[in-house]
Amino acid sequence: MSPETLPSWPEVAADLIAIAAGRASATTVIRGAKVANVHTREILNWQIAIAHGRFAYVGPDASHCIGPETEVIEAEGLFAIPGLCDAHMHVESGMLTPAEFCAAVIPHGTTAMFTDPHEIANVLGLPGVRLMHDEARMQPCSMFVQMPSCAPSAPGLETTGHEITPDDVAEAMAWPGIIGLGEMMNFPGVVHGDPKMLAEMAATARAGKTIGGHYASPDLGPAFHAYVAGGPADDHEGTCEADAIARVRQGMRSMMRLGSAWYDVETQITAVTEKGLDPRNFILCTDDCMAGTLVNDGHMNRVYTHAVACGCDPMVALQMCTINTATHFGLERELGSIAPGRRADVILTSDLATLPIHRVIALGQTVALDGKLVVDCPHLNWPGSARDTVNMARDLTDADFEIAAPPGANDATVRVIGVVENQAPTKALSRDLPVRDGLIEGTGDTCQIALVERHRATGGVVNAFVSGFGYSGPMAMASTVAHDSHHMIVVGTDRANMALAANRLREVGGGVTLFAEGRERALVELPIAGLMSDSPAAEVAAKASALMQAMRQAGCTLNNAYMQHSLLALVVIPELRISDLGLVDVTKFELTELIEST
Amino acid sequence: MSPETLPSWPEVAADLIAIAAGRASATTVIRGAKVANVHTREILNWQIAIAHGRFAYVGPDASHCIGPETEVIEAEGLFAIPGLCDAHMHVESGMLTPAEFCAAVIPHGTTAMFTDPHEIANVLGLPGVRLMHDEARMQPCSMFVQMPSCAPSAPGLETTGHEITPDDVAEAMAWPGIIGLGEMMNFPGVVHGDPKMLAEMAATARAGKTIGGHYASPDLGPAFHAYVAGGPADDHEGTCEADAIARVRQGMRSMMRLGSAWYDVETQITAVTEKGLDPRNFILCTDDCMAGTLVNDGHMNRVYTHAVACGCDPMVALQMCTINTATHFGLERELGSIAPGRRADVILTSDLATLPIHRVIALGQTVALDGKLVVDCPHLNWPGSARDTVNMARDLTDADFEIAAPPGANDATVRVIGVVENQAPTKALSRDLPVRDGLIEGTGDTCQIALVERHRATGGVVNAFVSGFGYSGPMAMASTVAHDSHHMIVVGTDRANMALAANRLREVGGGVTLFAEGRERALVELPIAGLMSDSPAAEVAAKASALMQAMRQAGCTLNNAYMQHSLLALVVIPELRISDLGLVDVTKFELTELIEST
Repeated sequence: MSPETLPSWPEVAADLIAIAAGRASATTVIRGAKVANVHTREILNWQIAIAHGRFAYVGPDASHCIGPETEVIEAEGLFAIPGLCDAHMHVESGMLTPAEFCAAVIPHGTTAMFTDPHEIANVLGLPGVRLMHDEARMQPCSMFVQMPSCAPSAPGLETTGHEITPDDVAEAMAWPGIIGLGEMMNFPGVVHGDPKMLAEMAATARAGKTIGGHYASPDLGPAFHAYVAGGPADDHEGTCEADAIARVRQGMRSMMRLGSAWYDVETQITAVTEKGLDPRNFILCTDDCMAGTLVNDGHMNRVYTHAVACGCDPMVALQMCTINTATHFGLERELGSIAPGRRADVILTSDLATLPIHRVIALGQTVALDGKLVVDCPHLNWPGSARDTVNMARDLTDADFEIAAPPGANDATVRVIGVVENQAPTKALSRDLPVRDGLIEGTGDTCQIALVERHRATGGVVNAFVSGFGYSGPMAMASTVAHDSHHMIVVGTDRANMALAANRLREVGGGVTLFAEGRERALVELPIAGLMSDSPAAEVAAKASALMQAMRQAGCTLNNAYMQHSLLALVVIPELRISDLGLVDVTKFELTELIEST
Repeated sequence: MSPETLPSWPEVAADLIAIAAGRASATTVIRGAKVANVHTREILNWQIAIAHGRFAYVGPDASHCIGPETEVIEAEGLFAIPGLCDAHMHVESGMLTPAEFCAAVIPHGTTAMFTDPHEIANVLGLPGVRLMHDEARMQPCSMFVQMPSCAPSAPGLETTGHEITPDDVAEAMAWPGIIGLGEMMNFPGVVHGDPKMLAEMAATARAGKTIGGHYASPDLGPAFHAYVAGGPADDHEGTCEADAIARVRQGMRSMMRLGSAWYDVETQITAVTEKGLDPRNFILCTDDCMAGTLVNDGHMNRVYTHAVACGCDPMVALQMCTINTATHFGLERELGSIAPGRRADVILTSDLATLPIHRVIALGQTVALDGKLVVDCPHLNWPGSARDTVNMARDLTDADFEIAAPPGANDATVRVIGVVENQAPTKALSRDLPVRDGLIEGTGDTCQIALVERHRATGGVVNAFVSGFGYSGPMAMASTVAHDSHHMIVVGTDRANMALAANRLREVGGGVTLFAEGRERALVELPIAGLMSDSPAAEVAAKASALMQAMRQAGCTLNNAYMQHSLLALVVIPELRISDLGLVDVTKFELTELIEST
């Protein structure tokens, strides 16, 4: 069963009624379990009958729903809880296709996801979103898609592969798996009344769907209130208790995230556990999880157990990743609880604090047992247009990465992107660099960075300098994951290796590679849009792990340095970034020159 | 401002943003109030800015929203709470049109109503529902309409003026003011899989709207579970704590009612106040309020203060008649809280326990001050088809009410409808009655009852006997309010007076009248569909009061006897009723004979 084949409640209501009344038999009955009721916050010794992928009967005794063909699951000693929902996340962050993402998280008990394919939208536009939507609809769990709102993220400062328009948003709202608008991250645009952003939100509201928010600013004054007045219904960018409280007081839902690199639950959940606010408007999510996290640490089960470890009552924490999420997206009668008519998504677990996942049932069928996926997660037949996205005119050579000094100069003062460990913002540094043979050369911890255009084969290469990685020896690392417009970022100490790395990604159709001394040391192939692999999460995680090992061997000392690499073109976060249009001063939202003076 | 003219949030988002940001001025600002936040259950010293009928800014300081034209309401010492919502009610129960109902309840702080025009649907069918819908949309508050589901209530046992079909339901779902399906009272039909009932619910679900429930049975076994599996999302028929808990555990919302004659809050709210269930799925409503209750006792303010008096935390009780209701109907971003973008519905009150209503703001404008309505509640130009609904072929005479005895009999044993004080069910009694001049005559407390057909001028008069009213002397009372098919019920001790009463209602176009000794003693004109008056509530209440006085003067000793009278044709409630098709045994859902034996 998948969202594509799942009958609607009304389509099977007659059968569900007949089963509940005892005139027909359920497909599956679970008995002996302690059932978590997220409507009342009770644990009940109840039984559960399932048919057509939905709950038919949930009550004290399902004996009358059992026929000769009924599968009876004996669950003595186990709790039955609703499948977990991830209220906001990006599939692409796992470097996995929707199918492989589902395969990775279903054994962890995630049965519903609200995904914003913002990254592929930048590369492939609306058709890319549709492909993600279509593969999501094929999965044996509920993966909903939010229509991306902001491509490009920074109009005028970068060139995306495609743009998203209000008409695109209106069109997508009619697709069956679209649940709302993805995070409205252009919050300055909303605050200033940008007609395009308002038109996208209006199209979403007219369709009766949920407008996702993203207010990434600590300013809770009039600008924040203006953003709320524009219509976003939730926000996952809060980082402290005051952020969470401010959002909920405005009638938004506060989405608290625990991703691979986000730790925003512990600092915000005190709004409930200590301040005692009504918990119904608090929701848990991951936002971004890398494949390694999914393989080694878990997914929404990790967020839930973390919330409980932070002192949240387990039933309240469970509501935060089930019914609260469902209600937020207008789906409270479709999923998020163990109640008649809803999608039959159930986890059997022996402990509500640590949540070991024994069995996962999604859309009425057992999809994982003791950590192993037991169903297929079907792959879309991804078209060539999605697999062939590293669109460079030709192979590059050393010369493409040369940075010419002003005629006659012996050195040059240049703007350098300063990477800051464990932080998304960069520093705008100034460095005096030597000139050799008319070319400005990196030195010490300052090496070269290039933004290689890869959407329209313009041949464009923007060269600049970056410092902070700690690379030494002739090396280069290249990645087609290059938020948000996802050209190619090449960082290297040596132009020959930079060319090798860039050309290698052209050859394999995208991914991440590291070359040292002319030889490839690691490669993560990401053939889908240059962003995702259709290999299993464990394989991708292993390759990503090998890549990080290669980075360390090349001298990199930074924690989480791959993430830093892939964010160097994110021209919405201060201070200095690179785009296909040049170096961007993100304190002023304008292009700037590489060379300050000679 | 009315629902018809209110701009949508997206239509005015740019202005709301500009006001919140301080670039434009609000129409109205409220400051000094303690603002009830039903999202968090907090009271905050906040300020409120309003424009275009919606909240633009809600926060600590609205100074930047005030311009030279802004009306500033100083509210020191007052609480600002969201306007109250009635989650389930019938306008017709007040004997008032939607306009006059709104005029009556707005000063009590009701700003949103979810109304099921079930009665007019029985008389006029879909066009009648449309008229109610259209007048509702003209009001200065939010009156939503639920599409009636069950006309007739008991197919085969009565003939309504019109029937409601699944196609009617599907058509109505596209009207702007339709919020869902009215109470699915044919619960045996749902439990047994009646295709018509399922089709109506499916049409509602397909439109993304809310299916109202009505499960009027104490049986919480498989029949109840089967009903829930059919799709109804709420129920207001619970009468005890176990009922409320059972419904909420199934993922329904429990609507607890306090109407003129319903007292179901105190017995159910202990599920929250004592058992500690999550209160989010509990809602308050009135279901049926007579004009006298509205004039003398209040409306949703009466329900709220009663809930608080029952021990409910005021903020929780407030949620039960604001945000819980809004969320249930998918309107949580449209009304039910004081938050940006929502309809600006606010009550200013000095006390959260007794809730004196100082000022009511609805859709952004002050609509009542200290109990006085200060705006118009516009009347629809009701067409003749809605005003001329007492469709009798001719005036009746004594002879129409004669009940012939079997030839030669001196007495007869007949089935008699036994009225039970303060209860909706009747008793099926058996009485030996005398025969005079070949006619069976009432005696003692047993008098005659007649069901006079009034929809198709068939000339049909069904005669029978009723006991329990206590009438003495020659009298008759007639009413065109005759649930649910609303023909005319005439009860009398004297055939001449019965004819006079029936003909009088034909003359005035419907209502309730009482004749004694050949003279009219009281009259409530109900010219709209024979059910409603377009006069103010106070006038209708005074006339209704005079009618009850006339009933007492005619010997009636029953409490609330008018209600008993109007329910005598309600052929879905046991045991014995009358319809245009004959006497109905509602223990067996079949027609039965008047005369048992001779």
